[in-house]
Amino acid sequence: MDLYDQHSGKLFIISGPSGAGKGTICKGLLEDCDPDRMSLSISMTTRQPRKGEIDGESYYFATKEKFQATIEEDGFLEHAEVYGNCYGTPKAKVLEKLQQGIDVVLEIDIQGALNVKNAYPNGIFIFILPPSMAELRKRITGRGTDSREAINMRLSQTLKEISYIDKYDYVVVNGELSEAVDRVKAIVTAEHSRVSKNIYKLIDKYKEEI
Amino acid sequence: MDLYDQHSGKLFIISGPSGAGKGTICKGLLEDCDPDRMSLSISMTTRQPRKGEIDGESYYFATKEKFQATIEEDGFLEHAEVYGNCYGTPKAKVLEKLQQGIDVVLEIDIQGALNVKNAYPNGIFIFILPPSMAELRKRITGRGTDSREAINMRLSQTLKEISYIDKYDYVVVNGELSEAVDRVKAIVTAEHSRVSKNIYKLIDKYKEEI
Repeated sequence: MDLYDQHSGKLFIISGPSGAGKGTICKGLLEDCDPDRMSLSISMTTRQPRKGEIDGESYYFATKEKFQATIEEDGFLEHAEVYGNCYGTPKAKVLEKLQQGIDVVLEIDIQGALNVKNAYPNGIFIFILPPSMAELRKRITGRGTDSREAINMRLSQTLKEISYIDKYDYVVVNGELSEAVDRVKAIVTAEHSRVSKNIYKLIDKYKEEI
Repeated sequence: MDLYDQHSGKLFIISGPSGAGKGTICKGLLEDCDPDRMSLSISMTTRQPRKGEIDGESYYFATKEKFQATIEEDGFLEHAEVYGNCYGTPKAKVLEKLQQGIDVVLEIDIQGALNVKNAYPNGIFIFILPPSMAELRKRITGRGTDSREAINMRLSQTLKEISYIDKYDYVVVNGELSEAVDRVKAIVTAEHSRVSKNIYKLIDKYKEEI
């Protein structure tokens, strides 16, 4: 009997400011991962797809009407408006996976993460920080989708958002990507090593053996 | 500025029943480790040295009189009597290292760990379990220092002790040693990734940059 296989799924919230590298960290985390152990939550959004983004993989792209209907059905774990677009986490899919013992990784902006914390306080909240504001500016500029004014607004917003870091459990600075991914993997391993109810199954077995 | 270098030292308590492999796990943990980052706490004991044990490395071997004097000086973080021998953790050395930002690893029996928890609740308490009672019997027998009767007494004691596992933060099953060591390393990494006061130093630096 493997104690660590007996776990119930855990919800890992990978969050942080735009440009910190949440997405690449999630990709690295899930790359070598057994899909029966860990799975990425896919958000619904009303924003337009960026180049290369595929519906049902990157996001569920939805109209504002569809999004509103899902809110009314109480179908989101959280939903929020960011820069004029709506983002939401479909509730049923996340809970179903957790019940099957599969970890769910949720990549989400800070406002969304705080809402998830209200709805699901048992989640493990990981804040991804850029190594510096200069590096963050470089990354956002390099993306090429935003004006200089928009970038400055975003950096000021980032500083405000970072003050919510004390609501999180862990912080990972994303300087060297592979190190950041390894750190998140260590957090996942540690969280699955926590003393939990599962341990009593193992102890019962020990009692039978003696 | 490396956030993770700015940490204050943490006390990791590696504990569990006799024969679970606490010692070999500690050895593995410290093997590749910078002594400026992590250091093993050396206990004082009144028990006789086993073959190969060196005073000041394995333990500080002491007379009952010396041990009693240290108790009276309030010189222990914890002390306890186990199987007729006294064990204690010299307080000053542990606290000094923590203040220098060095992690301290404390290998200790369960009774001792519970006492440390009272004295130092900020410690990180890791319970090492053998993979089975059959395997534990094999390990204790192989050590060759105890009679069959003593072994049976010890296994019954072990079952009682395991019930204290809910006082611990983490549990690591020591089946495959290298896996167990990696799991403890992951716990150390995760604990140093916790959101703490150090993060505000980094955020202040971000504010200056923008």
